[in-house]
Amino acid sequence: MPHDPSTIAILMPGDMGHAVGRALGEHGHRVITCLAGRSDRSRQLAAAGNIEDVGDLGRLVREADMVLSILPPASAIKLATDVANAMTAAAARPVYVDCNAIAPETVSVAAGIIGAAGAAFIDAGIIGLAPGKGTGTRFYISGPDAAPMLALDGHGFEVIGLGDQIGQASAMKMCYAALTKGTWTLQTALLMAAERHGLYDALIEEFAFSQSATLNAMQNGRLARIPADAARWVGEMKEIAKTFRAVGVPGDFHDGAAEVFRTLARTPFATETRENWDESRTLADAIPVYAAHLDDTGEEQD
Amino acid sequence: MPHDPSTIAILMPGDMGHAVGRALGEHGHRVITCLAGRSDRSRQLAAAGNIEDVGDLGRLVREADMVLSILPPASAIKLATDVANAMTAAAARPVYVDCNAIAPETVSVAAGIIGAAGAAFIDAGIIGLAPGKGTGTRFYISGPDAAPMLALDGHGFEVIGLGDQIGQASAMKMCYAALTKGTWTLQTALLMAAERHGLYDALIEEFAFSQSATLNAMQNGRLARIPADAARWVGEMKEIAKTFRAVGVPGDFHDGAAEVFRTLARTPFATETRENWDESRTLADAIPVYAAHLDDTGEEQD
Repeated sequence: MPHDPSTIAILMPGDMGHAVGRALGEHGHRVITCLAGRSDRSRQLAAAGNIEDVGDLGRLVREADMVLSILPPASAIKLATDVANAMTAAAARPVYVDCNAIAPETVSVAAGIIGAAGAAFIDAGIIGLAPGKGTGTRFYISGPDAAPMLALDGHGFEVIGLGDQIGQASAMKMCYAALTKGTWTLQTALLMAAERHGLYDALIEEFAFSQSATLNAMQNGRLARIPADAARWVGEMKEIAKTFRAVGVPGDFHDGAAEVFRTLARTPFATETRENWDESRTLADAIPVYAAHLDDTGEEQD
Repeated sequence: MPHDPSTIAILMPGDMGHAVGRALGEHGHRVITCLAGRSDRSRQLAAAGNIEDVGDLGRLVREADMVLSILPPASAIKLATDVANAMTAAAARPVYVDCNAIAPETVSVAAGIIGAAGAAFIDAGIIGLAPGKGTGTRFYISGPDAAPMLALDGHGFEVIGLGDQIGQASAMKMCYAALTKGTWTLQTALLMAAERHGLYDALIEEFAFSQSATLNAMQNGRLARIPADAARWVGEMKEIAKTFRAVGVPGDFHDGAAEVFRTLARTPFATETRENWDESRTLADAIPVYAAHLDDTGEEQD
C-alpha cells in the first residue's frame, strides 16, 4: 500500500466528513462513500463534497486504500463492526482511521474489532472547523501504523502525530472538546438557572460590568446556535466523562453537559443545520426557549 | 432603628468580612465582632479591619443595629441559630443580613430561624473582590425589610436591590459564582485529565493556536492560586448545585466543581492565604501537583 493512499473512503459524509472528502478530492485523491440507507442530507453533502457513492460496503473496502470513520460517537462501534465484517467477507484490508469523538476506552474496542479483521488501525481526533471553514483543521493521530495518515498532512488539513499509542489522539480530542463544549453548556446551564429564577436581565447587567469578555463570547459565540448539533453531542459528552473518570478526574461536568444538550435537542431550534440556522437569533431570544424545555417544565414549544 | 445603622456587627471577619468592616468604619460606623473561639488569622484580620471585639454574642446583639453574616457557606445555618438564640436571651433584635454564598432554599431556613427570634432578615449576595481590592464590591440584596441595607449604598460598596423576595439575592450570587468558579474548575479538571493522559504540553500548544484568549485567562488568572480558597468553596459549589436543581437545571457541573475543590484542598498549596500565596507559581507548575492529589492516586506530596 502506498503511503499516500490514492482512494479514500469517507464514512459518513456529514458536516465534517463531506468537507474532508472535498479537500482530499482537491488534492488528487479519489474519494468514495457508501450511501445505502443514508439520509437525503447525507446525499446532498456527498454531492457537495464530490464524493462518489460506490453502493455497498463490500465494494467500498475493496476499492479503498483507507477508510475514514467520521460519525456521531454513538455509531462508532457499530460502523467499525460493519466495516470489519465487510473486510473479512471481501478479503480486503484498507487502513481504518477512527476519527470519532470517543474515549480512549471506546477507541480500543474499535481497534480490537478492526484488528481482528486483519487491518491496520489509526486513532484520530479532529480539532477545528471543517476544511475550508476556519483557520485550519487539525487531525491529531496516534498508533503504531500512523504513516499513511501522516502522508496526508497538507492535503486540506494538518496531521499531527501524538506517538504510537492508540487512544492518545482520542484523549486529546476529548480534553479539547471538554473545554469548548463544556464551557458552552456550563454557560447555558447558569443562564437557564438565572432565567428560571427571574434574574436573567440582572445577571447579564452584572456580567456586562464585571465579566464583559465572557459575556461577549456568550452573546456573539455559538450559544444561541448549539441546538443544531445538540443531539450528536450528547454522546460526545458521555465519552468525555468516561475519558476523565478513567484517570480519576470527575466526569460530572460532562454528565451535566450531556443533560444540557439533551434539553437543547428538544427545542424547535434542534431541527436547524449549520447550513440554515438562524444567524439573527440572540442569546436573549434563545435562553427562554432553552429553559422552557428543561425536563421538569412539561411545556412544549413548537 | 435608624435607616443608616450606626453600629454594625461583622460575623466573621475573614478576607471579605474584615474589608467590609474596615470600609464601614471609614464611613463613620462603629464596627464590632465577637472573636471568642476564632483563629489567630481572624484576630489579625479583625485588627486590620479596625473591628472591635465585644467578647460574646449576647453583648454583640445588644449593641448592634445590624448583623452581617459573612461566612463559609457550611456555617451559615449554625451561626444564624447561635445569633437567634443570643437575640432571644438578650431580648435584642438587630437586623440580620445573610451575606453567605448559599442556595435560596438554605437562605429560607436561615430566614425562618431569625424570624422566629423576632428580627428582620435581609438576603444578600456579595459579588466582586473585597472593598479596597478591585473595581467595587456589589451587595445584591432582597427581602421585604431591605431599607437598612439600601441605606449603606456607597459606604465602601454598592448596594443593589433585587425586590422583596428572600432568596433572589442568593440566587444571583449562585448564578454568578456558577460562571466564575464553574469555569475555573472545569478548566482545572480538563488540564488534570490531559496531564494524566500525558497530553498536557500538546493540549497547551493546541490552545495557544486555537483558544488563545482562554489559555491566557487560564495562565494569568486564578487557576494556579485557587487552592487557597478551595476548602471553603466546596460548600459553595454544593449550594450552586442545589440552586440549579431547584429549577430543573442540571447540578452536575457544580458537583464536579466541588470534587475539584476537594482535590485542591488536599494539595500543599491549600495552606496558603490571599496574603501569602505564591504569585510566581505558573499553571504548568500547579497542574501536576493538583493531578497528583486526585482521589485514585494514593500519592502524598508534602
